[in-house]
Amino acid sequence: MILLFGAQSFQRDEALEEILLQNMAPLTPRLVIPIDVKKQPWEQKVPLHNRWHPDIPPVADVTEGELFRVEMVDWTGGRVRDDNSADDIKFLDLTITHYLSGPLRIVDSEGLPASPGDLLAVEICNLGPLPGDEWGYTAIFERENGGGFLTDHFPSARKAIWYFEGIYAYSPQIPGVRFPGLTHPGIVGTAPSIELLNIWNEREKKLAETSPETLKVCEVLHQRPLANLPTPENCLLGKIQKEMAEWHKMANEAARTIPGRENGGNCDIKNLSRGFKVYLPVFVEGANLSTGDMHFSQGDGEVSFCGAIEMSGFLELKCEIIRGGMKEYLTPVGPTPLHVNPIFEIGPVEPHFSEWLVFEGISVDEYGKQHFLDASVAYKRAVLNAIEYLSKFGYSKEQAYLLLSCCPCEGRISGIVDSPNAVTTLAIPTAIFDQDIKPKRLSGRPLRGPKLRRLPDLLSCSNSEHLPVTQGQSGTREP
Amino acid sequence: MILLFGAQSFQRDEALEEILLQNMAPLTPRLVIPIDVKKQPWEQKVPLHNRWHPDIPPVADVTEGELFRVEMVDWTGGRVRDDNSADDIKFLDLTITHYLSGPLRIVDSEGLPASPGDLLAVEICNLGPLPGDEWGYTAIFERENGGGFLTDHFPSARKAIWYFEGIYAYSPQIPGVRFPGLTHPGIVGTAPSIELLNIWNEREKKLAETSPETLKVCEVLHQRPLANLPTPENCLLGKIQKEMAEWHKMANEAARTIPGRENGGNCDIKNLSRGFKVYLPVFVEGANLSTGDMHFSQGDGEVSFCGAIEMSGFLELKCEIIRGGMKEYLTPVGPTPLHVNPIFEIGPVEPHFSEWLVFEGISVDEYGKQHFLDASVAYKRAVLNAIEYLSKFGYSKEQAYLLLSCCPCEGRISGIVDSPNAVTTLAIPTAIFDQDIKPKRLSGRPLRGPKLRRLPDLLSCSNSEHLPVTQGQSGTREP
Amino acid sequence: MILLFGAQSFQRDEALEEILLQNMAPLTPRLVIPIDVKKQPWEQKVPLHNRWHPDIPPVADVTEGELFRVEMVDWTGGRVRDDNSADDIKFLDLTITHYLSGPLRIVDSEGLPASPGDLLAVEICNLGPLPGDEWGYTAIFERENGGGFLTDHFPSARKAIWYFEGIYAYSPQIPGVRFPGLTHPGIVGTAPSIELLNIWNEREKKLAETSPETLKVCEVLHQRPLANLPTPENCLLGKIQKEMAEWHKMANEAARTIPGRENGGNCDIKNLSRGFKVYLPVFVEGANLSTGDMHFSQGDGEVSFCGAIEMSGFLELKCEIIRGGMKEYLTPVGPTPLHVNPIFEIGPVEPHFSEWLVFEGISVDEYGKQHFLDASVAYKRAVLNAIEYLSKFGYSKEQAYLLLSCCPCEGRISGIVDSPNAVTTLAIPTAIFDQDIKPKRLSGRPLRGPKLRRLPDLLSCSNSEHLPVTQGQSGTREP
Amino acid sequence: MILLFGAQSFQRDEALEEILLQNMAPLTPRLVIPIDVKKQPWEQKVPLHNRWHPDIPPVADVTEGELFRVEMVDWTGGRVRDDNSADDIKFLDLTITHYLSGPLRIVDSEGLPASPGDLLAVEICNLGPLPGDEWGYTAIFERENGGGFLTDHFPSARKAIWYFEGIYAYSPQIPGVRFPGLTHPGIVGTAPSIELLNIWNEREKKLAETSPETLKVCEVLHQRPLANLPTPENCLLGKIQKEMAEWHKMANEAARTIPGRENGGNCDIKNLSRGFKVYLPVFVEGANLSTGDMHFSQGDGEVSFCGAIEMSGFLELKCEIIRGGMKEYLTPVGPTPLHVNPIFEIGPVEPHFSEWLVFEGISVDEYGKQHFLDASVAYKRAVLNAIEYLSKFGYSKEQAYLLLSCCPCEGRISGIVDSPNAVTTLAIPTAIFDQDIKPKRLSGRPLRGPKLRRLPDLLSCSNSEHLPVTQGQSGTREP
Repeated sequence: MILLFGAQSFQRDEALEEILLQNMAPLTPRLVIPIDVKKQPWEQKVPLHNRWHPDIPPVADVTEGELFRVEMVDWTGGRVRDDNSADDIKFLDLTITHYLSGPLRIVDSEGLPASPGDLLAVEICNLGPLPGDEWGYTAIFERENGGGFLTDHFPSARKAIWYFEGIYAYSPQIPGVRFPGLTHPGIVGTAPSIELLNIWNEREKKLAETSPETLKVCEVLHQRPLANLPTPENCLLGKIQKEMAEWHKMANEAARTIPGRENGGNCDIKNLSRGFKVYLPVFVEGANLSTGDMHFSQGDGEVSFCGAIEMSGFLELKCEIIRGGMKEYLTPVGPTPLHVNPIFEIGPVEPHFSEWLVFEGISVDEYGKQHFLDASVAYKRAVLNAIEYLSKFGYSKEQAYLLLSCCPCEGRISGIVDSPNAVTTLAIPTAIFDQDIKPKRLSGRPLRGPKLRRLPDLLSCSNSEHLPVTQGQSGTREP
Repeated sequence: MILLFGAQSFQRDEALEEILLQNMAPLTPRLVIPIDVKKQPWEQKVPLHNRWHPDIPPVADVTEGELFRVEMVDWTGGRVRDDNSADDIKFLDLTITHYLSGPLRIVDSEGLPASPGDLLAVEICNLGPLPGDEWGYTAIFERENGGGFLTDHFPSARKAIWYFEGIYAYSPQIPGVRFPGLTHPGIVGTAPSIELLNIWNEREKKLAETSPETLKVCEVLHQRPLANLPTPENCLLGKIQKEMAEWHKMANEAARTIPGRENGGNCDIKNLSRGFKVYLPVFVEGANLSTGDMHFSQGDGEVSFCGAIEMSGFLELKCEIIRGGMKEYLTPVGPTPLHVNPIFEIGPVEPHFSEWLVFEGISVDEYGKQHFLDASVAYKRAVLNAIEYLSKFGYSKEQAYLLLSCCPCEGRISGIVDSPNAVTTLAIPTAIFDQDIKPKRLSGRPLRGPKLRRLPDLLSCSNSEHLPVTQGQSGTREP
Repeated sequence: MILLFGAQSFQRDEALEEILLQNMAPLTPRLVIPIDVKKQPWEQKVPLHNRWHPDIPPVADVTEGELFRVEMVDWTGGRVRDDNSADDIKFLDLTITHYLSGPLRIVDSEGLPASPGDLLAVEICNLGPLPGDEWGYTAIFERENGGGFLTDHFPSARKAIWYFEGIYAYSPQIPGVRFPGLTHPGIVGTAPSIELLNIWNEREKKLAETSPETLKVCEVLHQRPLANLPTPENCLLGKIQKEMAEWHKMANEAARTIPGRENGGNCDIKNLSRGFKVYLPVFVEGANLSTGDMHFSQGDGEVSFCGAIEMSGFLELKCEIIRGGMKEYLTPVGPTPLHVNPIFEIGPVEPHFSEWLVFEGISVDEYGKQHFLDASVAYKRAVLNAIEYLSKFGYSKEQAYLLLSCCPCEGRISGIVDSPNAVTTLAIPTAIFDQDIKPKRLSGRPLRGPKLRRLPDLLSCSNSEHLPVTQGQSGTREP
Repeated sequence: MILLFGAQSFQRDEALEEILLQNMAPLTPRLVIPIDVKKQPWEQKVPLHNRWHPDIPPVADVTEGELFRVEMVDWTGGRVRDDNSADDIKFLDLTITHYLSGPLRIVDSEGLPASPGDLLAVEICNLGPLPGDEWGYTAIFERENGGGFLTDHFPSARKAIWYFEGIYAYSPQIPGVRFPGLTHPGIVGTAPSIELLNIWNEREKKLAETSPETLKVCEVLHQRPLANLPTPENCLLGKIQKEMAEWHKMANEAARTIPGRENGGNCDIKNLSRGFKVYLPVFVEGANLSTGDMHFSQGDGEVSFCGAIEMSGFLELKCEIIRGGMKEYLTPVGPTPLHVNPIFEIGPVEPHFSEWLVFEGISVDEYGKQHFLDASVAYKRAVLNAIEYLSKFGYSKEQAYLLLSCCPCEGRISGIVDSPNAVTTLAIPTAIFDQDIKPKRLSGRPLRGPKLRRLPDLLSCSNSEHLPVTQGQSGTREP
């Protein structure tokens, strides 16, 4: 009997097969972490956590080969509501994020846990929204509250609600668009060792202490702060409760979950969907796997920051321990053996589109300034180009910005060696629109769509002062 | 009769159709620019050019709707040979590049040329290598002669030769690999206006004069120079011969062809292949379309600089003028109306792969230093991760570096908002290898492949001193 | 707000949108037909039916645009068990099949029901196995109990059990194979009018009364009976209970559900999966939509008869009434306006495979006899060729036969005009196997796989006499 | 060095590699059979043949691993012209077809020829129309001159001319349609042995002598004759000239090329395109490979008989001999070891479409008569349904019939076990049309397209009497 194999690959382990052969009952996945979305994150039956730390105790054991189910709150634990205002976005306290389910201790068929140096293969056999909670949201964060990739252009909080119809999503705030989700968890990660945690904290502290003015890229990327350092504020550490002795020390050093790192974490890779398999390095005994930040759909880059269609959800997972695999397969690139990154295989059921409209961007910023092979600057320009283009088809620029954050668009680094310009591309599947958005010969006939405003627009705040766009912006921007 | 339509889209122009209806003969494409690969670039029947300048005169007129054929030398005009040494790469004078075919003046069915403000739709109906010259090369450039994305890791010149078998390519220097080409021109562009040319020269001069030490990214990206400014050395201006009065002035201000810019140019986008359609802004009367730098195949990023499978080749093209389309569809993002970028539609016959192995990279460099949302740094790490991984399957790191430059791998910007880490991914189609390169459970069985060196290796120079890798490189690099 | 659109197409209905705008709550699908798999088909809360008849009363109303959920028992209503014997298959009484959920009366936003002459667009937004019942089975039916496409070659009952891991299925009885399901309902149909029902009964009765010996194809296709006529035995008519006056008459004329017909019905089209949209003709007021026969996966042809991975399951559906659409879009091909067939659009998330091994078949039968452009004969030969081939890779022929019934293989009519041979092809995705099944050069090296028997084999009957294969079979068959 | 591998698979042969390593020159394919389209088929430099016979002598040797080029006339050898009449179709003498290039004798690297019992792997590395002859045609054959799948509905000769624009084709006679070609040879085959030839002749003669009235399917399929038997008329046997002694005997027994058979031959499988690899059984020493009948594009079934876009063209091929492979991989299904069929792997660059409109057909004929599991009848109905549907979008039924013959549509056997109905489907990629052909809600708005006739129509004959459609046709057909 074959039980442990990847998306399309197969490995056999006779011992394990023998053991599993004895259990031939229908394999409904075992629910190891249940969620009640009507409760607060800290009230869940199995305690959640929102930091990375090696000493957060596992909440359950999982055996390799076993199919199990993990449920998750959305990244904010229910703070964002299906209502008519973006106030919840404007005032959301980012120290609460992201609420994760786990950690899970992974053991082999003999009960031996995964060990540092192993590779943990995690296959996503299935996933989706939680039944009864089939909706999501996408938002632009306020410039003063985290911002996003284009916060200098779109400084004010905005929100769109998305409803799901099985594999499809649509939003009342972005009319004329509907698409199948490439649903995925934004966060899949193992716990860092204390050594790795220290490396993170040191390097990010160093960056956070940098004066933004000294960073050329900060002339273009206005998102702040430069890094989110550990803070006990709103810190949740699973079974380690606030009143416990170790809480304070741990809370002060536990890493924030915002960035992706060596352990995987918040990589926000849209292709980590059904049937996909990730190979995570193991840094602590048991691997201590955590997951969260479910996305119904996301575009490459997740540009508006809260840019995916955020939701609560579930994962059905299967793990395999590749003993010694971290050393065998992951060569560190950096000063220590811990400087590695996960690798993964893509699943077989991604939505497929055959027609794409593609926008280019080069590393010249909106002021006309030339940057050196900077793919971030080039991608910013590609996204701006796409927003401007879509705004000709009836969308407000905020609508277009949000849409590019969450629809299954692809952001590519096309050229990175032709000094001084990096060239990036942003490809949009044209089938998601209810109109033809390709350029057309204009021989006297009116365009379908353009000029005709798509309403309603995104949700804004109750008391919305207009934040000024970044000083010195080019004449091509809206006043 | 329908003649003028895009990849999968259609527009009708009754007047034009009427005219074309009268010519019902088999539409063998008209050869407007022939190439004799046995001759030097400056000896070709139709003169070539290797700079961008508005005053390079068109070499031919092309009517919209007409199917025509353009032949091109490879980007070096034959300087790189199918031999056993990388000397030609080591000493290649980059001031000669890229040799372009054109410019072509595009007129409508009434003979009126494309005008500034129009959009020029160019459809690639077919393309390929030149018959009798079915081979290509990929190279690592010497650090002191241009370098590449990883020049600090791979400072010495190397070369691989590729032979074609129809849609497939293989190289004696990278055994065990064969793949279908996503063949495309690296360069498709229109001529800049004098105003745009001035913008280019000013912004690039400003960058070139910057001290690299002041650019944070230069700690990581060691490719130099920062920009390639105009130079009369080896300058070729088509019909404007060196002895003509205007040559000297033009040669001193004509833009180099290295980077992609507002006019398209050297964008090196691997998806500009059969059936694809690009919408180029028109800056000068007639559009003055030029093409060159044919690639049999390229990976996203073209990381080793001369990283595509470079070849001579032909294009079969069809143009359409969208009057006023530049203003209608392209909103400038920058200080002038000229700050635009082309857009394009992808063709229907790209090679399709269903299994991909994907590597992640975050914006932490090889020294362990944290960078701020820098996609270039993150992509460098993803490429390094992939090279290290492939080197476990019998390849030298140079082989892996070259392979990732030219095989149909995809480089994506996955997350660009989770401070401080940009997350990029590099996806490799596993079917191009003659071995299974996916990670496997290691229960006592030997890996197929790893340890077993794939020979021969890349071609090196006759007199190759070993260049030291960049000072201070991490302990994980080879000594 | 856009609510009613197809897989990738969009239509707007202002009135309907207005109404729907007022209900902005999360759209968890309304459960209109619940199933309890622990109960018998006739004990379900909402009564099921297993015949087609215009007078079976609707069990619920559904409004167009509404997202609703229908649950279904497997086609046998639980008669086949997850045990170690094929006895349940051998003795299954086919008069019980298929148990359907419905009929549903479809009304528009004003409460007006769909009318004869309309087209009912049904979109499958989501589907899957019932939670807690995640398993399925595939079977060869006994020759004397229905048989299958190759019943002359495989006359004895056999069974395989499949377990699901999210999108993947594997069977202990067919080792070395795992694949993502292209899950779909075998049956989606509207109720026939009494006129259409009469047409069915007449034409099928006529065929059933034919002596098989007079049908040339019956020398090759040994499945019997020729047609399944109405019978009151085991007849279930929903709300019309056996003790009611009309039951007897209805039971004697209600059509069996075995074949697909003008109303859709048991078409067993594997591509009717997530995101798919079918356009069904409406023959009675309300349309009376019924669904059933859920398949986790099926190959084209479903050759072993009970050849899909049969399971219980759920559908999440959305309907749209296209008024007058049957007349507008479906031209009858036959003697009455009722002789039409449904049309459909394929969804965007089918599993995609890039490598296929393809077998040809021509219309020459196993005895070497030439048939005239007979695609059924040609397909039989293609399937036989594939079975023989797979049997070289360790599989028994029964295993191969079952696998080709249920894996996502494609059966195509390649040539149908080159007298006397129809040419069909059967394409198998190679990625579903844990070994490379492509032909290889045999220079002394042993084949991986062949000769090595894959065990265990299919489940057989407790008391299995060996049925003789059809008399006169060719010498190439096993004794 | 790796030279001999399949589409995506790889095998190594050290000896062969050594030999090939010594020839590192650019591998322009060797032209082994040149064609001059201005000459008649019997005037070509290398003599052609239009029959299958073991004694037709090879015209050239080809070594395995070698890349070589074969050119071919179109199937009629230039009898059909790019003019304004279908007269050439009406009076075309089918005894001339198909003109094949070959046979080629395949030898291994030591000069030993392929032997009976081997498998010949043929990879199509590239293919296309002949330069300067870039056009094709599609035709409906007259009922009295061969007819086609729907000859009872469309009895009169019709023709459409197609012009190519690189990968795309369009026809002045079928406006509003353009699509990328899935270009392929209709015929790839090895020579039969004399034993196999005898088997063919016997079984086809037996069928030809059958009275059509005794075949049930002949009530539905009106194409005649039942089989095309050997005839010396217009027989061309390559190097065996008419005046040679053996010609007469050979001409009287050489098999016609119309049907596909055990040797491959006229299988008309549209997926045999670029990058594809077929495994052909070898029946005679040297294999004697022949190719012909180039198609720019074809739909599954090639329903109008001359239904592909027929053209002259070239193939670039590579062969590999799998010694003993026929016995190892191909199990005969029939009375002798010769009753086998080729298998193949699909190439990686087929055009990909994401949206399909699909038509169903069941085995009930146009008279309403029920047939037993007859996939041919069911496919006929699916094609009729599609024709009727397309005729609502401005096309004449003849235009639709031809279009479905040549566009990349897919014909599938969906269900073949649900007595009495076989269910087939015909899937049309919607992107080939310049209008949206999906069904739409009809709320008062006019349909785009329908009613509006697409002109001009197909080419007809100069002196066209209207042939009556088959007697007894249903009332739904045109008068």
